[in-house]
Amino acid sequence: MNFPVIGIIGGMGPQAGLDLAAKVIAETQATTDQDHLPVALLSYSHLIGDRSAYVFGEPVLNPAIAISSIACKLSELGVQVAGIPCNSAHAPQIFDELTRSLEGTGIRILHLIQETIRYIREILPDLNRIGCLSTLSVHRLGLYRSALENAGYTPIMPPDEIAEQVVHRAIFDPEYGIKAQPAPTTRTAQSMVYSALDECRKTGAEAVILGCTELPLAVSSAEDLPLIDPARALARALIRETTPQKLRPL
Amino acid sequence: MNFPVIGIIGGMGPQAGLDLAAKVIAETQATTDQDHLPVALLSYSHLIGDRSAYVFGEPVLNPAIAISSIACKLSELGVQVAGIPCNSAHAPQIFDELTRSLEGTGIRILHLIQETIRYIREILPDLNRIGCLSTLSVHRLGLYRSALENAGYTPIMPPDEIAEQVVHRAIFDPEYGIKAQPAPTTRTAQSMVYSALDECRKTGAEAVILGCTELPLAVSSAEDLPLIDPARALARALIRETTPQKLRPL
Repeated sequence: MNFPVIGIIGGMGPQAGLDLAAKVIAETQATTDQDHLPVALLSYSHLIGDRSAYVFGEPVLNPAIAISSIACKLSELGVQVAGIPCNSAHAPQIFDELTRSLEGTGIRILHLIQETIRYIREILPDLNRIGCLSTLSVHRLGLYRSALENAGYTPIMPPDEIAEQVVHRAIFDPEYGIKAQPAPTTRTAQSMVYSALDECRKTGAEAVILGCTELPLAVSSAEDLPLIDPARALARALIRETTPQKLRPL
Repeated sequence: MNFPVIGIIGGMGPQAGLDLAAKVIAETQATTDQDHLPVALLSYSHLIGDRSAYVFGEPVLNPAIAISSIACKLSELGVQVAGIPCNSAHAPQIFDELTRSLEGTGIRILHLIQETIRYIREILPDLNRIGCLSTLSVHRLGLYRSALENAGYTPIMPPDEIAEQVVHRAIFDPEYGIKAQPAPTTRTAQSMVYSALDECRKTGAEAVILGCTELPLAVSSAEDLPLIDPARALARALIRETTPQKLRPL
């Protein structure tokens, strides 16, 4: 049996690439090693500059250039469909440039945020008020807010103060943050994320997007509040676009 | 900064490739995404036949053929050093054929089992009696037993009955086995692995190799008995052979 190879442009950060690959495995219908889908993961962190720095105007190269060259290497391996597990790489200044540079190369990059919206529609068809926790840069860029609005949802974003003092710190604090202590995450980080989820719930969110690849490490469920993992959405989209017959039913 | 790319031939099973990549991240001295080493992971499970079946004489192709073609793809990406996180792929019938087929291609595959021995010498220089838990095929092939003997160690292998009824079942049982329920592993599987570790301890083992990529998921420590994770040894070897200045001190 020959399957099309699923491409992953990882390294932003390196753990997020592995997390997406793990979710491709989890979302595949398979009982033996040989049933699993081929994945080519290029995790070239050192080549790709800071996405937030570029978007917020620091004088650095557009990360789209490095991402595009990695996509071309995947294309040489025969990959036609790939994903990028990094929210801020989907800022229009980066993603649109990437898409333009790949025209005619035969490789197509699925859009993490658009796939998340599509996934919400599929698993939670009756909801309208969708919250989103993320890093400060994704929050400030409004990536999920505008995508939700464009799709007809009412986005419920935490106030700037919560985004900055609670969510961002829970991710980045050098002592207790999820990036510093990912396995297991600290109680402090966990309770901060839960308090931000409570804030979303109080302001009417019916479900919340965990719009940063680190957040699912700290919280996996929140009682009656469905949590949406964009990496899972992207993993399912990669299977759907390459080998739909192997996609595990929801 | 340009670093040589670390190659991983994954897919045997797919989770083991991700586990090795995660250990490369963990063993790298890095504080930002950009500090991390480039990794190319090709997880082409569907191409590679069952290693045990071949070794035990079933009429299937030598998996070395598929592994070699994947190594050549890594070589085309510029990879010069790669690892294979699969114990049974290191049976001489497979690994020697692989090495022969890659002569002159410029890519070198580090040897998981030899690197594990080297790692033991480094972290536990004064020990001599080394136990090993593994799948039944690696146990029967005696891969670790002969490597330990050749290096001057006294191997402490569990009796065949324990290898078969306890360790192998803890890994493969369709209900409670680690392959069936990897995250989290079941209490049954955990206590079976612990009882096999106790058996090793009783027969004089001073440390035990977890010679199957699934075992570290069920046990991470065993009181006074040091546990050796070959994937960690291989991750460190890949860094040492490509970018020694980035290897995290022990």
